[in-house]
Amino acid sequence: MSGKKIKTVIIGASGYTGGDFLRLAHTHPTIEIIGLIANTHAGKTVEEVFPHLQFANLPAMVKADEIDWQEVDAAVCGLPHGTAQDIISTLPSHVKVIDMSADFRLTDVQTYEQWYGRAHDHPDLYTHVAYGLTEHNRAAIQGARIIACPGCYPTAVLMALLPLVKADLVDLSDLVLDAKSGVSGAGRGLKQNTLFCESGEGFSPYAIGNHRHTPEIEQELNKAAGQAGIEVSFTPHLVPMSRGELITCHLTLKDGASLAQARACFEETYQDENFVHVVPDGVVPGTQHVRGSNHCLIGLFKARPANKIIVISTIDNLVKGSAGQAMQNLNLVFGLQETTGLNGLPLFP
Amino acid sequence: MSGKKIKTVIIGASGYTGGDFLRLAHTHPTIEIIGLIANTHAGKTVEEVFPHLQFANLPAMVKADEIDWQEVDAAVCGLPHGTAQDIISTLPSHVKVIDMSADFRLTDVQTYEQWYGRAHDHPDLYTHVAYGLTEHNRAAIQGARIIACPGCYPTAVLMALLPLVKADLVDLSDLVLDAKSGVSGAGRGLKQNTLFCESGEGFSPYAIGNHRHTPEIEQELNKAAGQAGIEVSFTPHLVPMSRGELITCHLTLKDGASLAQARACFEETYQDENFVHVVPDGVVPGTQHVRGSNHCLIGLFKARPANKIIVISTIDNLVKGSAGQAMQNLNLVFGLQETTGLNGLPLFP
Amino acid sequence: MSGKKIKTVIIGASGYTGGDFLRLAHTHPTIEIIGLIANTHAGKTVEEVFPHLQFANLPAMVKADEIDWQEVDAAVCGLPHGTAQDIISTLPSHVKVIDMSADFRLTDVQTYEQWYGRAHDHPDLYTHVAYGLTEHNRAAIQGARIIACPGCYPTAVLMALLPLVKADLVDLSDLVLDAKSGVSGAGRGLKQNTLFCESGEGFSPYAIGNHRHTPEIEQELNKAAGQAGIEVSFTPHLVPMSRGELITCHLTLKDGASLAQARACFEETYQDENFVHVVPDGVVPGTQHVRGSNHCLIGLFKARPANKIIVISTIDNLVKGSAGQAMQNLNLVFGLQETTGLNGLPLFP
Amino acid sequence: MSGKKIKTVIIGASGYTGGDFLRLAHTHPTIEIIGLIANTHAGKTVEEVFPHLQFANLPAMVKADEIDWQEVDAAVCGLPHGTAQDIISTLPSHVKVIDMSADFRLTDVQTYEQWYGRAHDHPDLYTHVAYGLTEHNRAAIQGARIIACPGCYPTAVLMALLPLVKADLVDLSDLVLDAKSGVSGAGRGLKQNTLFCESGEGFSPYAIGNHRHTPEIEQELNKAAGQAGIEVSFTPHLVPMSRGELITCHLTLKDGASLAQARACFEETYQDENFVHVVPDGVVPGTQHVRGSNHCLIGLFKARPANKIIVISTIDNLVKGSAGQAMQNLNLVFGLQETTGLNGLPLFP
Repeated sequence: MSGKKIKTVIIGASGYTGGDFLRLAHTHPTIEIIGLIANTHAGKTVEEVFPHLQFANLPAMVKADEIDWQEVDAAVCGLPHGTAQDIISTLPSHVKVIDMSADFRLTDVQTYEQWYGRAHDHPDLYTHVAYGLTEHNRAAIQGARIIACPGCYPTAVLMALLPLVKADLVDLSDLVLDAKSGVSGAGRGLKQNTLFCESGEGFSPYAIGNHRHTPEIEQELNKAAGQAGIEVSFTPHLVPMSRGELITCHLTLKDGASLAQARACFEETYQDENFVHVVPDGVVPGTQHVRGSNHCLIGLFKARPANKIIVISTIDNLVKGSAGQAMQNLNLVFGLQETTGLNGLPLFP
Repeated sequence: MSGKKIKTVIIGASGYTGGDFLRLAHTHPTIEIIGLIANTHAGKTVEEVFPHLQFANLPAMVKADEIDWQEVDAAVCGLPHGTAQDIISTLPSHVKVIDMSADFRLTDVQTYEQWYGRAHDHPDLYTHVAYGLTEHNRAAIQGARIIACPGCYPTAVLMALLPLVKADLVDLSDLVLDAKSGVSGAGRGLKQNTLFCESGEGFSPYAIGNHRHTPEIEQELNKAAGQAGIEVSFTPHLVPMSRGELITCHLTLKDGASLAQARACFEETYQDENFVHVVPDGVVPGTQHVRGSNHCLIGLFKARPANKIIVISTIDNLVKGSAGQAMQNLNLVFGLQETTGLNGLPLFP
Repeated sequence: MSGKKIKTVIIGASGYTGGDFLRLAHTHPTIEIIGLIANTHAGKTVEEVFPHLQFANLPAMVKADEIDWQEVDAAVCGLPHGTAQDIISTLPSHVKVIDMSADFRLTDVQTYEQWYGRAHDHPDLYTHVAYGLTEHNRAAIQGARIIACPGCYPTAVLMALLPLVKADLVDLSDLVLDAKSGVSGAGRGLKQNTLFCESGEGFSPYAIGNHRHTPEIEQELNKAAGQAGIEVSFTPHLVPMSRGELITCHLTLKDGASLAQARACFEETYQDENFVHVVPDGVVPGTQHVRGSNHCLIGLFKARPANKIIVISTIDNLVKGSAGQAMQNLNLVFGLQETTGLNGLPLFP
Repeated sequence: MSGKKIKTVIIGASGYTGGDFLRLAHTHPTIEIIGLIANTHAGKTVEEVFPHLQFANLPAMVKADEIDWQEVDAAVCGLPHGTAQDIISTLPSHVKVIDMSADFRLTDVQTYEQWYGRAHDHPDLYTHVAYGLTEHNRAAIQGARIIACPGCYPTAVLMALLPLVKADLVDLSDLVLDAKSGVSGAGRGLKQNTLFCESGEGFSPYAIGNHRHTPEIEQELNKAAGQAGIEVSFTPHLVPMSRGELITCHLTLKDGASLAQARACFEETYQDENFVHVVPDGVVPGTQHVRGSNHCLIGLFKARPANKIIVISTIDNLVKGSAGQAMQNLNLVFGLQETTGLNGLPLFP
């Protein structure tokens, strides 16, 4: 690709994931942003929609039909779930699609309909789709046209569970996933519970036992375990912070399995990875250690009951959980080094 | 007690729990604060130590030996663990002691020594001690001279577990307690991890598998279950907010037990309580709904795996988890209505 | 009034000021809440609208026409500006109205129209109105039927300026008021800029030079100075916190006037007040020292240029700036002690 | 410098400014970090001191005497005021020093002694010093050996005042600077007022009329105005956020001067600058629009009194106010493009 730019359009450019992709793209040497689609904000400048991007020399927001798709190489889609599939289905086939919505994550369209409340109208496109959990699905991603980037929760959860499931170290009937997310995970839409005064200085669970990311997590665990029917107990909570996600996985070791084996399994899985790190014994991962970056930290701990362990996984929900992973996949699809544009360290404090 | 004031001294008046007791005492009709002990701050006025209490007409901070204990009815102790027992052991026997430290919570002194790093020098005093989880131990509290108020985590955890354990509804070998606390739980001492810049905009676990409140929780569960050896998996996390605590209890129902039974058991246990409330189906408890108040909210939810339930319990760690529960116990000890001084509603937003 | 309850209806009960009045009313011995009006939320229970009030035994939300106004003694109105006057004009004349909106604050109806964008349809009611800055207008408030409670900014500003203006100590052509407010000042409506992710971890000014509270401040200053034409420079900013307001008044002393004179003037003005306090030299007022309470703290400081002083004034915008001041006025109107129901100390931390 | 690395040592690497320089240096193509000095933390790894830098492949913390200064090209100093001059005075003369402390900012050593409480022991070094406000002092910086980077407040203030002072548009006897800073401005040391529970959910002024940055601001204004004796009214406040600084400058136009002239003057001054931007009419600068970046936003507004204007200036105190400006100066000193390593966009939300 040397020298040639990847002409990129953002679909849904006025949301947080679209905005964060633009932030990352600014220092990416090959991505050239040639269009920003934001239907309800069409006509506005970037500085009106995102004042922090006013230095970035970006085009104004337009409607989808104002784009000349013939000159587009890549579309990065940050639309809400249920609205992405319709526009993606209309794009010419030479456009690579990096989709941050949920519309192509669930391969079973009935499961999609059940959890997302609308029929899937484009099941035919699935032959072109790869699930975009980069570290665990590189080969498929490289050859696909549509990358269904995982949800933020599934990203953090699967990084922590897949190695253990593949190595058959934990009891698949006892997967307790206590999840916590910053408020940006709820998007930029206007909802009472994401007002500063409602979510500030407070902590609460939500969607207990029925969050939409549950079937996605189960789908990938089933695939890794070579079975069906895994059911996880997934409980998300809202944290009074903007960014960051941390999963506390309460797991039961299989008979004969040990924490040391689990640690070895993680270290082997991620030893060559640039973004996924197993922290040393005694270091405790926190969301503030990955804020703004594409890194994922994983820590392993002994629980008090002898057969239980705790695996902590943390990411920035808008980066590794969304825009960063999207860029990582875009790099892969276009044959670039996976870390291109993603070398920034976390912002602390 | 009508007409007569309860002359009260605060030991450790410059910390957050001492300060919050003073806030609550201000509208208590019977408590009269006659002394404030704060060794390192002795000589300072209240407005220097706690500007928000400058309207309360309180005495200056003094050293312990400046108090004439003969005229004291009650001592409320907010000292750090390990330092409370020494001063409590010197108080004359007519002084009722409401102790918010951990020094008399663990009835087994070897367990105390193991978890708190010092020998217990006053095991003889235990004959005068009652464990101060008011709703579950009223009779003992009324007749005791020293009330060992529970830690903030045990308070919230036990409110959620004791009814189920007593009714034999859950598997005692699978008690997963994912706990979250605001930063005030760490006290007012200077530590790097409680600086605004370190704990703000971030979320992280700590003391995984070895928090000091663990043996206290287990002691009370063993007592309720009439057995020994219960081991809980207790994992606390630090939330970027000042006040509030929420426990997500991941529990396994015993064969034949149901969520409906669990709910009925809670409703029966707490039906006459002023401060502990089982929220209706569909309402999700959050720390912002109890902030500043002595209330505890409990919610019950079905998990996705058939045999698992989730019980959420939330309190203000400084009130029901500390100063409010201390006042509730003081009321009980002095024959007052339990709610005296504690009728304030939560502050929201 | 002894024994008899003040039957009170809240108009606009689902907003933050209405909700905070309900919190305060819960421990008020004489106020009885008999109706909650919230048009768009009519039919909902309090626990759905304000989970933190679920312990308060309050009636459900209704529409205005469901109230039998014959049995109502007082109406406390927390509606947005422009919508209060219409309902207030329909109330029977025996109902005392404590209005927290701006609709009867500006005595010049053309000024009202200019700043609030609609005509004032009920100028006839002004003969029954008193401006509700309690400490500076008690006599008028006691005899009025409609109390126009000041805006939160005017409350804090006027507490800091009126004594100096009346004593003719400062230059009225150089009143620079740099104001800061927590996010609850913007109300509970859905706006992008009050989302957690937009206002959290950030600080910014707004409505520079044209905030609606400006003419109200000027009106009262003109009145106190016995002149017309005062123009203040008023610049509000949004602080990432829920509650609290602090005004930094940059003032120029008149020739011959001194900081000591200014301090003496404040101390004399407020020496008998329960809620307004001049802090001692060296103590710096902060919003965290009044949070949740009806107190106002005022501090005076020398600026570096010889003729300038800085006066700091801080309140909780929802209490002294709104619901608390409303209750203080209600007490006055009904002949109760002004502090009734308002003795609570600030919540810190 | 092509190909050759700038071998750089950080002095005071465990503080926030040192840490943020390391974050920025990670994507700088020419800076090579060869030593980290942190006396009290000597022996610790970076991941113990700054977990967010654990991915950066940095050396462990050492004491100053463990560095071989012969191979060092640049020293970036993030020590507290008063401790920097002693170590800087011992460095060999080939080492370029980028000093983020206050030790060489005040050219009058008596003023230094008066405000910083210790004698200046190395006045001889001043012949090698340039004041590091890059946009206004490039020529001097390029030729200097020691760059005294401005304080965070002076940086934001001077960006907003120097153009107006040089163009003689504002009254120099009426410079009212109302400043607000996030908590990281107070450093990483342990102080009660920077604990989460003390500064969270609260807003308060501090050091009113006597902040140490005052003489530095006045020194530079005097220089620009070609006079002596300017006295500013500077009032800083602490905002409950980690990063960000915003100055509200309340200014009086000279007779005949206009807001339009002021705007033209700013636009001309900064038209070729990469990091200083005059925002368009109607856009309001906020700290969240520069967070984590080296950008400075300036907005101009009409105040209500006819002759007054308001100039808003905002930066990230740790970047443009410290580590970013340090890197900008280092680039200049070593003949690199000024923007090298500083192209990152702000992190929002």
